[in-house]
Amino acid sequence: MTRKEIDVDALGAALVTGDVGALSRAITLIESTLPEDRSRATTLLAQLHARTGDAVRLGISGVPGVGKSTFIEALGTHLVNGGAKVAVLAVDPTSTRSGGSILGDKTRMQELAHHPLAFIRPSPTSGALGGVAATTRDSILLCEAAGFDVVLVETVGVGQSEITVAGMVDCFLVLMLAGAGDELQGIKRGILELVDVLAINKSDGENEQPSKLAAAEYRRALKLMSPRTPGWVVPVHNSSALNGAGIPELWDQALAHREHLVASGFLEQQRAAQELESLEKLLEAGLMLAMREDSTVQAKLDEVVLELRAGTMTPRSAAERVLASFLARG
Amino acid sequence: MTRKEIDVDALGAALVTGDVGALSRAITLIESTLPEDRSRATTLLAQLHARTGDAVRLGISGVPGVGKSTFIEALGTHLVNGGAKVAVLAVDPTSTRSGGSILGDKTRMQELAHHPLAFIRPSPTSGALGGVAATTRDSILLCEAAGFDVVLVETVGVGQSEITVAGMVDCFLVLMLAGAGDELQGIKRGILELVDVLAINKSDGENEQPSKLAAAEYRRALKLMSPRTPGWVVPVHNSSALNGAGIPELWDQALAHREHLVASGFLEQQRAAQELESLEKLLEAGLMLAMREDSTVQAKLDEVVLELRAGTMTPRSAAERVLASFLARG
Repeated sequence: MTRKEIDVDALGAALVTGDVGALSRAITLIESTLPEDRSRATTLLAQLHARTGDAVRLGISGVPGVGKSTFIEALGTHLVNGGAKVAVLAVDPTSTRSGGSILGDKTRMQELAHHPLAFIRPSPTSGALGGVAATTRDSILLCEAAGFDVVLVETVGVGQSEITVAGMVDCFLVLMLAGAGDELQGIKRGILELVDVLAINKSDGENEQPSKLAAAEYRRALKLMSPRTPGWVVPVHNSSALNGAGIPELWDQALAHREHLVASGFLEQQRAAQELESLEKLLEAGLMLAMREDSTVQAKLDEVVLELRAGTMTPRSAAERVLASFLARG
Repeated sequence: MTRKEIDVDALGAALVTGDVGALSRAITLIESTLPEDRSRATTLLAQLHARTGDAVRLGISGVPGVGKSTFIEALGTHLVNGGAKVAVLAVDPTSTRSGGSILGDKTRMQELAHHPLAFIRPSPTSGALGGVAATTRDSILLCEAAGFDVVLVETVGVGQSEITVAGMVDCFLVLMLAGAGDELQGIKRGILELVDVLAINKSDGENEQPSKLAAAEYRRALKLMSPRTPGWVVPVHNSSALNGAGIPELWDQALAHREHLVASGFLEQQRAAQELESLEKLLEAGLMLAMREDSTVQAKLDEVVLELRAGTMTPRSAAERVLASFLARG
């Protein structure tokens, strides 16, 4: 037995007992860019494959200021108090530039972070093969193999991150605020096509009435759109992470959505589609890596880079030449 | 002469006269996914290459609700009234899912949209090779070849789109609002590392005083960070698209930033780095295309897809097999 096999087997064996230390090390392994770690990660995930798929994968999104972290703390606490094992992962594309993470500061979720049934993992940087999305996808699987019942995947508010997270969860919960500006319309349109459960958050105090009106407005709007899950009517609830109102109801809706997914057979379909998307991203990353590892292509790449620097070639022409050299090799 | 050469030459000849119809057709060409169109686009861009690079490339960002479109209308009008030719492009990752566009509704910028010196192009969908970012990068070049003095690139508020747009412009202008929630901190941190000029928008009426305090706060915060452009002190201004206050000052700051870029020689460096990034994205897209066009690899892909569907293989293992088959060919 090579050291590699021993490592992976031991790590996997510890992980499936629910050892969060092993879970953390396993996630660190899949985040690694070292070739030997990448193949270990592939082996580990293949070994754990049969133990994955049982958790409720819930994506939680909403624009900055909507109260995501307080909401997740409230929801997560509700779940662990009910005896469920809850993992919280984050997808934060900005961490590629800022190096920071929307979950880096665990004090945001102090109560949850210290609960024995909870596991909180900050957003990875995009260094790993396939970037933040790939590592988060695999982290979900590792959490499932470690026996977590619920995996909450938090994302920053708009743009690609919404689509990325909706593409790796079963149920996509979006938090909204009452009285959002008109300019949000463009974003909302995109989000309403992804949402499975909608919450109008911060529905407390003087904001309670406007929030109820907003909820009614969203219900009307959603009637006009085809839901992400065929045959599912997207429920809209008011919530307050402050006083806990609406949190259990929203969770029940997430469970109802899951039942609908299972009963309709759409859960399998959706997860299959998500795995295909994951495959595509991994292929993209692997191809780039293979190209960089070919010395002839690397030489051609260096050549066109000089031309780019000299301003004598466009990126498109440069790409064509490098691709030609890579595809001509053999 | 083949028909292709005639097409591209004629299109390029019309475009460089400032013909916006030709510019629109050229952008449509680079957005096309048809192989013959892709090579035409590459040829066209190579032909126009010498005429590109002279515009002020200004990225404009800010979270939804900050007043981006009204601000761009005000800034763009200020510029065209000064005799400048202004192009407005948009990057909206959500358009990959919603099919919509943050600039789809030109009524958002009615005055500017109908000005003879202005050109407004909605965000492309990500169908084209290299996606929204690649087509927007090339659209900037086409606008420059068509004689536009200023290219404004608008983006939705947070996440990858910020980084994408900052990666294709010379100057990145970010709009902020006074009294933003704590949860914005994570986002701000990322944005403040990208920003070249900062505007506290909607600084009018009762919001004027809070906006001035916010501006002071941002100036303090920015002192603690290394600017994107070495040696540049990020200016913070209050602005009101409503009454036009601060708009000319912000434009002057964008010009001052450009002068600093040119004088420090950093403009060339930054654009060179951006071209390299563009090359990388194009290679990624081109490799995936080449792989799909290889029948042997396509067969292997079909095979592992069946295994994925059957749940007998993980995406990572599937990717490894397909890559092996692609790299073994030749």
